Amino acid sequence: MARHRDDAKVLNRLARIEGHVRAVRRMIADGRDCAEVMVQLAAVRSAVDRVSRVVLKDHIRNCVAGRPRGPALARVLAELDGALDNFLG
Amino acid sequence: MARHRDDAKVLNRLARIEGHVRAVRRMIADGRDCAEVMVQLAAVRSAVDRVSRVVLKDHIRNCVAGRPRGPALARVLAELDGALDNFLG
Amino acid sequence: MARHRDDAKVLNRLARIEGHVRAVRRMIADGRDCAEVMVQLAAVRSAVDRVSRVVLKDHIRNCVAGRPRGPALARVLAELDGALDNFLG
Amino acid sequence: MARHRDDAKVLNRLARIEGHVRAVRRMIADGRDCAEVMVQLAAVRSAVDRVSRVVLKDHIRNCVAGRPRGPALARVLAELDGALDNFLG
Repeated sequence: MARHRDDAKVLNRLARIEGHVRAVRRMIADGRDCAEVMVQLAAVRSAVDRVSRVVLKDHIRNCVAGRPRGPALARVLAELDGALDNFLG
Repeated sequence: MARHRDDAKVLNRLARIEGHVRAVRRMIADGRDCAEVMVQLAAVRSAVDRVSRVVLKDHIRNCVAGRPRGPALARVLAELDGALDNFLG
Repeated sequence: MARHRDDAKVLNRLARIEGHVRAVRRMIADGRDCAEVMVQLAAVRSAVDRVSRVVLKDHIRNCVAGRPRGPALARVLAELDGALDNFLG
Repeated sequence: MARHRDDAKVLNRLARIEGHVRAVRRMIADGRDCAEVMVQLAAVRSAVDRVSRVVLKDHIRNCVAGRPRGPALARVLAELDGALDNFLG
């Protein structure tokens, strides 16, 4: 339901993550050592975490700001539980 | 120092992660809702974790199998501590 | 501000975590091996994660259900951002 | 198999974690708000992570330093994979 307002920022971060993963592939193809590869993979993971957090916060923010009541409230709370489970899984 | 033996497997997984991130970008550009986006971002994160674990295990395996002694042992142990810190950071 | 409705459940889980940590101490004092100790520490960590998630979800649920507006909305959103940062840190 | 050399340090950290969990229980019994509780639960989780990392590193260190060969090498590598899976699970 909820669109996120920060689409441009999120798209930009995802494009950079994609490029980062491509760079790690090149490192491995070039025979770079494990330690360097792990540093870059840890950086990729942090970047994925950060962009996920932007999406999650924006989602929660929209839910709260929508001030739902009655059946809409129940639906929003169920969606939020699902979103947190997915994110925190 | 240590090359990983599982290069083909790791390269393959990274290529799939790259495609997955590209697909998430398209989802957002298409205005798909946050809940779906978060499911996919959680899947990307899991995939990054799994491939990092392959690299880490392979690195540790090589270090142990190398049966270092003397100064080589000290160097290997220092490298391992660094690798674990990067991965677990 | 927000009290959590699930206090009894949370208190109960925390009491079990406390007992679990005590049991791990005994294992180490008894000279049990690292592999077993790590299994139990991983279980403690999962239990801490689960109880944190109960507290976080309840907090978010209360914030949404409170249907804040105006200055109260801004305050609730700031608190939520802080709570997520603490939890996800 | 492997005992950890850092037993005293590990036992000490675990005793502090136990006390920390007890303090969080008291906070909840006293009706302190969720945000404060989450800060403390996040601190407990970090402390559990840190002590697990001490145990894991020490375990790996012992395995490498043991310089296993033949069947002992296979057993050590299998144990390490298990330890990493438990820790990273």
